[in-house]
Amino acid sequence: MEEPKLVFGLNPFLVDTNPPPIPLAGAWAALYKPTPDKPLINLAQGVPGAPPPASFQERLGESAADSATTTYGDLRGDAVLREGLARDVNAVYGAKGARAVREEEVTLTAGCNLAFYATMITLAKSGDEVIVPTPWYFNNEMTLHQLGIQTVPLVCSSPSFLPSPTLAATLITPSKERKIALVVDETYREFLPPGSGKPHELFAIEEPEEDWRTYLIQLFSFSKSYAIPGHRLGSIIASLPFQRQIHKTMDCLQICPARPAQVAVAWAIEGTREWREGVTLELVARAKVFVSGLEGIEGWAVETVGAYFAYVRHPFPGVPSEVVAARLAQYVGVVVLPGTFFGPKFENVDDDRFIRFSIANVSLETLKLVPARLVALNEMWGSLPKLA
Amino acid sequence: MEEPKLVFGLNPFLVDTNPPPIPLAGAWAALYKPTPDKPLINLAQGVPGAPPPASFQERLGESAADSATTTYGDLRGDAVLREGLARDVNAVYGAKGARAVREEEVTLTAGCNLAFYATMITLAKSGDEVIVPTPWYFNNEMTLHQLGIQTVPLVCSSPSFLPSPTLAATLITPSKERKIALVVDETYREFLPPGSGKPHELFAIEEPEEDWRTYLIQLFSFSKSYAIPGHRLGSIIASLPFQRQIHKTMDCLQICPARPAQVAVAWAIEGTREWREGVTLELVARAKVFVSGLEGIEGWAVETVGAYFAYVRHPFPGVPSEVVAARLAQYVGVVVLPGTFFGPKFENVDDDRFIRFSIANVSLETLKLVPARLVALNEMWGSLPKLA
Repeated sequence: MEEPKLVFGLNPFLVDTNPPPIPLAGAWAALYKPTPDKPLINLAQGVPGAPPPASFQERLGESAADSATTTYGDLRGDAVLREGLARDVNAVYGAKGARAVREEEVTLTAGCNLAFYATMITLAKSGDEVIVPTPWYFNNEMTLHQLGIQTVPLVCSSPSFLPSPTLAATLITPSKERKIALVVDETYREFLPPGSGKPHELFAIEEPEEDWRTYLIQLFSFSKSYAIPGHRLGSIIASLPFQRQIHKTMDCLQICPARPAQVAVAWAIEGTREWREGVTLELVARAKVFVSGLEGIEGWAVETVGAYFAYVRHPFPGVPSEVVAARLAQYVGVVVLPGTFFGPKFENVDDDRFIRFSIANVSLETLKLVPARLVALNEMWGSLPKLA
Repeated sequence: MEEPKLVFGLNPFLVDTNPPPIPLAGAWAALYKPTPDKPLINLAQGVPGAPPPASFQERLGESAADSATTTYGDLRGDAVLREGLARDVNAVYGAKGARAVREEEVTLTAGCNLAFYATMITLAKSGDEVIVPTPWYFNNEMTLHQLGIQTVPLVCSSPSFLPSPTLAATLITPSKERKIALVVDETYREFLPPGSGKPHELFAIEEPEEDWRTYLIQLFSFSKSYAIPGHRLGSIIASLPFQRQIHKTMDCLQICPARPAQVAVAWAIEGTREWREGVTLELVARAKVFVSGLEGIEGWAVETVGAYFAYVRHPFPGVPSEVVAARLAQYVGVVVLPGTFFGPKFENVDDDRFIRFSIANVSLETLKLVPARLVALNEMWGSLPKLA
């Protein structure tokens, strides 16, 4: 069918926004011909590798079978889950007394992407700037771009890939007197290896001038820890003055988050704790297997690795990471995302050497198949069609 | 606890946006002291008056009990529901052949509010204008306001409250040569009385220059017809060029809609049709009861009525509708929303004479209690505390 020609104009910021990358990775994957002993290995989107435990799954079903969850709820989410999350955060971060997070300082959202979107709308308008460390989450840049907000990259580099406070300070415009909000997305906080201590101290600092409420906005997703991305549930912890503003945008964006999962997750915070600790141990073990599996493969080097993602240097200087990712999918059936999806387009092609592997997606057995695929790509590289 | 002082600035458009009105109505309601024979009657938010049928409720439970719905889905929503909705729309609107809506022209959203938000981000940027007929849906104006988009009211008046195309034409800025998109929110389309015919002809017009795809965006909510607002499910039907842009914002806003309801609703389009037709008949009957119940009550006049809402003139000239609404809640236990929530603030107080009753919310028996409450308010009005 011929494409219809729209009679109206579109938001130029959205037109100029990158398309969603996950479907693009799917298109690369479609070019691969899997065989029984060489299945497709999809390490593109960060998704839990196993379903939630049966006790939790049953409660999700019971909750959705109850007509009480068919009605609108509190725009901030159900109180029972806000209270449960506040308790959990206070225990994990050591927030006590006047610093303890209260239930009214929590807003539950239809996923953490929506939490970020609403937070950006609350903080900034078209023409403002937001500093984002690289490698960034592509949806964050897409969100800012479509709203006409400038993304200022805070480039993080090998070997640590940690953001530099000194470099960050140089990016803050003087007109704002450096009084800016700190937004932390702690979707992966439950996957720190045992013994790591608190994720950070910001909720616990008791000095009068350092109340987290004056500058901090914490985002969280239940998708990864609780293995329920399909239920879309995230959260925003921030001060009441900030919450009052964010309620105005949440009322327009979600009215309330989908309710069945809220009831079940309120139980699951304590009810699945042991299972979640087991998943963390498995992810830590899996990262070790992935790193050691790549050792000795010519040109491939794991630059940094967390529970869900490994950021890996590829062995083909001068070849864009998008080409390497496309070839990984098409020729050896490993679907990953190129580094260019996680930062500004690099002018220096030497910086375009990274590939992101989502190592949490598949079983340990499947993950062990990856090194041989990389060796196979190395071996066939010279005989692949020449690059344009 | 003392209010924390934020060190950072906020989006001034959001700060200037009205707060959500539903919690405000709740605060008015909290002032009423219900008794067993004079219960609180909440006619504020438009909510289904009865839960979904058991056969549908069971499927909602089964779907959420299945681990298949815990995973991410297609960002446009599940294909089975997009196909089902396209079939339903084609049948209802008589869209045939090249005009028939295809599944890829449907995007499912986490509620119809999100559908509107995403549509506005796709069409407009800060500084642009959108024409909205009054009485408008308050969340529409709040959405535009926080995005820095100007809401241009297209005032609709007694007796028909239908938008005037002539007046609309005068509001369109000449620079755009009147080439603008038409966005229709058809959340209530299933509640037209039997025999009303198609909701409109726009999907069916076959003239080559009149393809709906070139100008039309249709929004829909499953909350009302399917009685599942807590599951958050809506839709956007538009051309592929428009969908390609909206996918970029949906990827950031929702990733995918919550999945359990999608599976069950795909069944419910046909599976609950008979039940939905019964609800429509009941709503039509209820509107008649409401209208006749108000006849003869001094000063109260139903100006216009649909399946869910009645727009009613109150009998107190010079008294703001917000005051009347607050007193209705506080003194006679009827919670409603004032007309000022549905349009620009009126400079002429004579225009501030309307109250919106959501008549679908409660049982017919409860709705029959309303006229006596209005009579009671009339009788006590003179003895109520003087207005400031």
